[in-house]
Amino acid sequence: MRRETREPEYVDTVVNVRYAETDQMGVVYYANYLVWFEVGRVAWCHARGFRYSDLERQHDRMMMVAEASCRYRSPARFEDEIVIRTAVGRAADKVVRFRYEVRRKRTGELLASGETAHVVVDSTLRPVRLPQEYRKYFLLPE
Amino acid sequence: MRRETREPEYVDTVVNVRYAETDQMGVVYYANYLVWFEVGRVAWCHARGFRYSDLERQHDRMMMVAEASCRYRSPARFEDEIVIRTAVGRAADKVVRFRYEVRRKRTGELLASGETAHVVVDSTLRPVRLPQEYRKYFLLPE
Amino acid sequence: MRRETREPEYVDTVVNVRYAETDQMGVVYYANYLVWFEVGRVAWCHARGFRYSDLERQHDRMMMVAEASCRYRSPARFEDEIVIRTAVGRAADKVVRFRYEVRRKRTGELLASGETAHVVVDSTLRPVRLPQEYRKYFLLPE
Amino acid sequence: MRRETREPEYVDTVVNVRYAETDQMGVVYYANYLVWFEVGRVAWCHARGFRYSDLERQHDRMMMVAEASCRYRSPARFEDEIVIRTAVGRAADKVVRFRYEVRRKRTGELLASGETAHVVVDSTLRPVRLPQEYRKYFLLPE
Repeated sequence: MRRETREPEYVDTVVNVRYAETDQMGVVYYANYLVWFEVGRVAWCHARGFRYSDLERQHDRMMMVAEASCRYRSPARFEDEIVIRTAVGRAADKVVRFRYEVRRKRTGELLASGETAHVVVDSTLRPVRLPQEYRKYFLLPE
Repeated sequence: MRRETREPEYVDTVVNVRYAETDQMGVVYYANYLVWFEVGRVAWCHARGFRYSDLERQHDRMMMVAEASCRYRSPARFEDEIVIRTAVGRAADKVVRFRYEVRRKRTGELLASGETAHVVVDSTLRPVRLPQEYRKYFLLPE
Repeated sequence: MRRETREPEYVDTVVNVRYAETDQMGVVYYANYLVWFEVGRVAWCHARGFRYSDLERQHDRMMMVAEASCRYRSPARFEDEIVIRTAVGRAADKVVRFRYEVRRKRTGELLASGETAHVVVDSTLRPVRLPQEYRKYFLLPE
Repeated sequence: MRRETREPEYVDTVVNVRYAETDQMGVVYYANYLVWFEVGRVAWCHARGFRYSDLERQHDRMMMVAEASCRYRSPARFEDEIVIRTAVGRAADKVVRFRYEVRRKRTGELLASGETAHVVVDSTLRPVRLPQEYRKYFLLPE
């Protein structure tokens, strides 16, 4: 139960910027940072020892996004190696929060930071509780 | 049964090029033409009097893409108005074919042309027959 | 100067949800709302009498996104007709703000709302002033 | 000059399927395979010892896609690890060809295969020759 306070708070994962992710300004299109946040969330789940798809397939639980925000500080460019750092934030009963930092790997420069809030729903999209064994991961009261 | 030979062979629909669809070459990224082909297919269904989503929801039938090809002749650019012309091609029992032309609306210039082939499947992704009442639309033998 | 106070404050534009925009939850993937916000901004510019691409090509001015946020209230689905309502918010010297509402056209239901903040930059991505004749549109002091 | 005949003909790279890449059919949307082909091309360039972006920035050369095709055999799903195998095909003076195979890493199952043809252009999008030192990589006559 106390375990997660001793675990590293965040999980890092790396993506290479794809040509598809750039726009005619020559930098990564702003909506794609939200895709990277998703990559960060999935990596965070793996680091905690489960697959996000198991949550969906085995437990009929999905994390529907309720809020997303991003601050863009410096543009990412094609072929940049990008580190996505993901951490969970304070959670309420049916709402889970993640925080993200996006950095250029080579320089460590902070390119963007953001947050998402998620409502746990079942496949009919109704809010439900997370299964007991997952609650600790998301800092939800057990 | 003969009806479709008297109907117009193709259906035109218009999209405006989105900034999101461009890449750092300053033109539309090549994969997005396949998204436009999908927009063309959906418009084609509407023009035939049904919604593609009805096929999925009411009849448990989906058109899984089996092949796609595109020839790119001249680049589309941000804010171009684009006409997608869609027609069905010769079909076999469980395979439906579409052909597409993508033109700049203002000039009529041909920007790209392509084809897709689709296998009719149910929600378990197994090949199945299209419901009787839809077969004529797709030039399938009834 | 007075003109824009008499103009409608917002601009509505309609998109049809594409299959490409859905995800395996059966609803529109959350990052795509930011693409729709862009569609709203471009429509807003057209309604004001100019093309966003003219700003880029003729004036070497781009609106680089500095912040984006979205609250998701109810999911959009494939083939929904969606109304994107766009308005400018209070602007500072080099920062322009937009607000958005995303509604299902048939029912008027609010699906999402959001905001973006943009820094006006030139093609070297340095912050610059907007050309004089455009400042009124964005509620910038002239 | 002899080197590449002894190098393996193909280059493998791995991607994890993103939630963003799925659609409401529960599988990867068909246009995204063309994005993966791009990931394969970029990995192929790296394996040959150069960055595709250097070609653009230092030599003002881009590989504009002229043709793309894909055959879809079995669907990729969220969180699948996917191997993209990329090889160059026979090239003509200003046209470069790539071939791709997309496999599920765990099972080796072939999910899709495809080809692209590219015209080498400069930043005005006019066809030009590749710089001499790159021609060998793309099996172009020197």
